[in-house]
Formats: sequence, C-alpha cells, structure tokens
Amino acid sequence: MTNDSAGVIRIALDAMGGDHAPKIVVEGAAIAQTRYPNVQFTFFGNEAELTLLLAKQKDLKNNYSIVHTSERVLADDKVAHALRNGRNSSMRLAINAVHEGKAEAVVSAGNTGALMAMAKFVLKTLPNIDRPAICAFFPTLKGETVMLDLGANVECTPENLVDFAVMGAIFATTVLGVHRPRIGILNVGSEEMKGRDDVRVAAQELRALQLPGEFIGYVEGDDITRGSVDVVVTDGFTGNVALKTAEGTAKMYSEFLKRTFKSSWLAQIGYLFARTAFKKLRKRTDPRTYNGALFVGLRGVCVKSHGGTDEIGFANAIGVAHDLVKYKFNDEISSRVELIHEKVLALPPEVKIPAAEPVAV
Amino acid sequence: MTNDSAGVIRIALDAMGGDHAPKIVVEGAAIAQTRYPNVQFTFFGNEAELTLLLAKQKDLKNNYSIVHTSERVLADDKVAHALRNGRNSSMRLAINAVHEGKAEAVVSAGNTGALMAMAKFVLKTLPNIDRPAICAFFPTLKGETVMLDLGANVECTPENLVDFAVMGAIFATTVLGVHRPRIGILNVGSEEMKGRDDVRVAAQELRALQLPGEFIGYVEGDDITRGSVDVVVTDGFTGNVALKTAEGTAKMYSEFLKRTFKSSWLAQIGYLFARTAFKKLRKRTDPRTYNGALFVGLRGVCVKSHGGTDEIGFANAIGVAHDLVKYKFNDEISSRVELIHEKVLALPPEVKIPAAEPVAV
Repeated sequence: MTNDSAGVIRIALDAMGGDHAPKIVVEGAAIAQTRYPNVQFTFFGNEAELTLLLAKQKDLKNNYSIVHTSERVLADDKVAHALRNGRNSSMRLAINAVHEGKAEAVVSAGNTGALMAMAKFVLKTLPNIDRPAICAFFPTLKGETVMLDLGANVECTPENLVDFAVMGAIFATTVLGVHRPRIGILNVGSEEMKGRDDVRVAAQELRALQLPGEFIGYVEGDDITRGSVDVVVTDGFTGNVALKTAEGTAKMYSEFLKRTFKSSWLAQIGYLFARTAFKKLRKRTDPRTYNGALFVGLRGVCVKSHGGTDEIGFANAIGVAHDLVKYKFNDEISSRVELIHEKVLALPPEVKIPAAEPVAV
Repeated sequence: MTNDSAGVIRIALDAMGGDHAPKIVVEGAAIAQTRYPNVQFTFFGNEAELTLLLAKQKDLKNNYSIVHTSERVLADDKVAHALRNGRNSSMRLAINAVHEGKAEAVVSAGNTGALMAMAKFVLKTLPNIDRPAICAFFPTLKGETVMLDLGANVECTPENLVDFAVMGAIFATTVLGVHRPRIGILNVGSEEMKGRDDVRVAAQELRALQLPGEFIGYVEGDDITRGSVDVVVTDGFTGNVALKTAEGTAKMYSEFLKRTFKSSWLAQIGYLFARTAFKKLRKRTDPRTYNGALFVGLRGVCVKSHGGTDEIGFANAIGVAHDLVKYKFNDEISSRVELIHEKVLALPPEVKIPAAEPVAV
C-alpha cells in the first residue's frame, strides 16, 4: 500500500467537500505541509479555482498535483443518488486514487453517508472484516478516548463489535500512541447481568480473545468523558447518539458560560481577569483538535473531516491520515484480525449468558 | 386512586433507600411539607431511628406515620435477590402501601433495578401498557426536556415507543406545564431514510396517530440539550447511554471550569468578580433541581430519587410525586392510551418503510 519513494506519503484531497471548500482544503493542506514535509497532495476539484488558491500558498511545495472535475457530491445528496451519479465527483475520484495505488489516503469534508458508501464500494473491506466503522477520538478528564462505531452501522452483530474492539485498539496505539489500550464495551450497567444480548455476547467473546489491548468489560455513558478506557466499543446507533449528546451538552455548557460572563458587569470584569486561562480551556476542548474521523476496516485510509471545520481542523484531519499511513495502521489490523478471526470461529457457537436485569439510572 | 379527604395526598417514603437515608428522607420530607401542606407522609424504616430524626423537624406537622421494618434493599443487591428476599424491606412495604390504597405515591432513593422490578410486580402496568419506562427531565438551552426510556427496557418494540411518546407528552404537560408538547424520536439522522427499523416503524405510527402533543419526527443526540422538542422518545439502552453521556460531559466541563479558575492568580481574581454569576449558573444546572425520575406506565405513582442526592433533591423528588398525583397523571394516561391503542391496532400490520442509509457524523 505504501509508496516506493522512501517516506513519501501521497494524500488525495476532495477539494469540493464540506461547507468551506475549496478554500479551507487548500489552506489546510498548506498547514499540514509544514508539519509533514514528506506528504504529496493531489487536489480533486475545479482546476481554475484551485490554481488561483494554490498560487497563494508558499508553504505548499511544488510537488502537488490537480485532477480537474466540475462534479461534486452535495451535503444533502442521498447516498443512493451519490453512488449512482457521482462517478466523476471530486469525492469519488479521490477515493479511486487510493484504490488505484496513486495515493495512500483520502481526506474529505463532504457528505458522510456518501463518502462511507463510495469508500466501501470502491475500496472494499479488509480481509475478515465484515463491516467498516466510523472511529474518532475525544477529550476526556484524563486525555483522549477513541470511540467506534459512530454511525456506519445502525445494527451490529457481536462479531462486528469484536472487530471494532480490535481496530479501535490499534487506532489508539497508532494515532494516540497508547501502548496497551484499555478497551471497554458500552452498556447500561457494569454488572454481569445487565444489558443487551449482543453486547453481552460480544463481551464474552472479547474476554476469551488475545487482543491488542486489555479488555476491561462494560463501561457506561459517563465513562466516555471520565477516561476510564482508551477505546469505547459500541454499535453505530448508540455511538452516534452518544457522540451527538456529548457535543450538544458541551455546546450547552459553553453557551451557559458565555451567558454567565455577560450576566453582570462584575462577571464581565471577572472575565477580563480570567481571559487567558479561558483561552487555554478553549484550546483544550477545541473540536478542531479532534477533527478527523477514520473509516476503519477498509482497504485504504479514508478520513472524514467535519463538514464545517476551518483550515486548522482540516490540517488536523490530514494529520490523522498521515499517521495512519506512516504507522501502517491497516497492515497492523490485517495481521491482528486474521488471528482473532480464527479464534472467534473456534469459540463455542452459543456463548451462554444469564438473563438480563433492569438497569440503574 | 386519590384519597377521599379533600386535597390530601398521601406519600409513602422508603426511608432506607439511597446513600444518605434515613436522614435526607426525613429532612427532604420536612422541606416538601412547607411547599405542599396537603401532603401526608408515611415513613417506612427503623422506627427508633426515624422517631429521633422526626422529633427535630418542626415543619412536619404531626400527621405523619411510621411503619417499622429493619429490612432494606441494598444498593448492590441483585434484582432477583431483592424480589425474592425483600418482601419486608422498606422499599417493598412502601410500594405495597400504594397498591393497598394507603398512599397515592411512593418515593425511593434506593436501588433502581429492584425498585422497578418490585413496582412492576406489585403495582402492575396500566391497561394497554405493555412496558413501564423510566422518565425524567433535564435542563436545555431553552428550558427543560422530558426523556424516556432511561433504562427500564434495553429493547423496545415500535408499539412500546409509541406508548412512551404518549406518556412522555402527558408528563411534560403535567409536571412541566407544557400545553402542547413537541415530541421527537431519537435517531441517527433527520432524513426519512436513516436509522434503525424499530425507530422508523414507530415514527410512521406516531405520524398516523392523534397524540397529546405534536410529533415532529426524528431528533438527534444534540437536540436533547438544544431543546428542539419537549419530549425525547427512545429505547432504554440508548436513553441510558445518552443520559449518562450527558451527565459525564457536564461533569467534565464543570471540572475543566474549576481547573481553569485555579490555573493562575489572575483567573482566581476573575472568579472573585464572577462568583455571584456562577452561583446562578450552578443553580440553573443543579442536578437536584432535576431529581425525581418517574416509572411511567404503572398503576400507581412511583418516583425514583437519585441515590446520592441530599434533602433538597429528595424534596424535589417528592414534589414530582405530588404533581403527578395532583394532576391525575395516571388517569390522563389511561384515557389517552386506550384511544391510541385502538388506532394502533387499526393501522396496517406492516408499515412500509424504505431501506436505511448510512448516517452522517
């Protein structure tokens, strides 16, 4: 998968995806170039427009290329429509580049559903991986936590959840540098008896397997931000709800904070004093720092940037793609999953579990 | 269900449930008594201990009674164990009082799973209600939102979700005073095509029914705190994860805030100026204000207080019980659900829905 030229990593950029493309794509690439001099970019989009924007970027060495297309996938395009009609879209051509070995990774800020469907259709899943998942990392009280699936699969089998655990652990090691990641599976109570059957079967299987990390059992919603584990495994429905609930709660608190500082002149003076400290807090919880969700389980690195991000956020998404290629994330998964798969098949067909109980709130 | 004496509401209190019982139960009852002079309490617990505590409470009129027991359900008791061995526990006797018509409502800060199982076993569900749910309300950017199920049922049928929508809307009207509550069902995308089948079938049914509120369709995790709707309907697995994720995120932000104000002497001075404003914010987001989860769908009012709450929080949980009895919450549900049920049965057996698509994150 990696390019022959020593150390060079080629990244295909969808220059028409997201709310502020192509501007933030070009500017983000320029920022990323200063961080990763070994990266070569190919921009997929309108050549005339890109040429103008690229001329302004001195940080981009002259080793980028442009592949012209005037077609794009829109943010509200239905997935089926995008798959059928988007064959010449910037998104599809950028994915094709990875499939054809012209790039090691693709980064797009476009329509998530379309990107996932196209990437799955073009790149296919890794051997022994049934379903790809969406994986990202978040701030916690202790550092960062990886969570998956964030929305690719609304329903999952226990075996899918096992695969997610393996891939999430390798992600934590590759991108966050965690040596032996602690893995938890999201449930509604920490007791053995509680929870949904698929989760309990997956937990039984995870206990029986040699993982690239330590399986610590069930975790609950509040463990995500507590940082109890490095990897939180869940189905795409629950993961998506949890992710958006956390984002919504963070937004609410930040809005309450703003209102509080504006609520009296004394509070306004207080803000003047505390301003520098609050700038650090904002940086600590900046969503741009955590930009770059990976579609794990595909034959190729495909990173989804938040659609509304700016150039800093987009550069960070490129950084995620760079790290995954550099540290051979997919090779790591393939070798691990093959071993795991043999062992899952060797497990007794029905893992016996006790009946479920109602849960505490 | 209501008592004959005009306006009197009799509430059975589990005086041995929760981390700080019986102290906060007695003190909470005293606070509630000043707010609701029409309430008569029966305390279930150790008589000697209660008598001593009650003697100190001048706000409690001499119209309370004590039912002695030395047995209690522990916080970590398994549900099956509590059901089998807890027949003389304070929790069980308090629930029995409602069943026997000696009280209109029961409030307990004890083990949630045991309370739900006992209440369901003793009180049974309301006619046409298949499953009870756990229902509570939360702060949002606009006011408050009711959410259910928060953990009683890890899997739900579309019909369960329809029942939850009806009961949640009546809760919003009864406890929060919302005239025509807006109801949303939690999903992973707002488009018609997205999400899990059970959710999509429930949404189809909700669209076809005359509800005690307005069904506005799908909502996502961030809509909970945004206040897009008054009632958020979901299964107990997703609801429990969302609730705890929101609690965890709130805790993380409040911890970050504390650290920020302590991070420099300038920030500390800033806090001195902004202190009064922050006290108001703390009050606005005080979990005690939102204490009191209702087990909806039972023949009797059963309110669960948070196990770790103080007397203020416990008084608020009593307030929820008071309102539900006063505004005849269960009668309201029974009459509504009967009508709804006939209509659900009249719907075509298979509501046709399109195939699902992957979702955006």
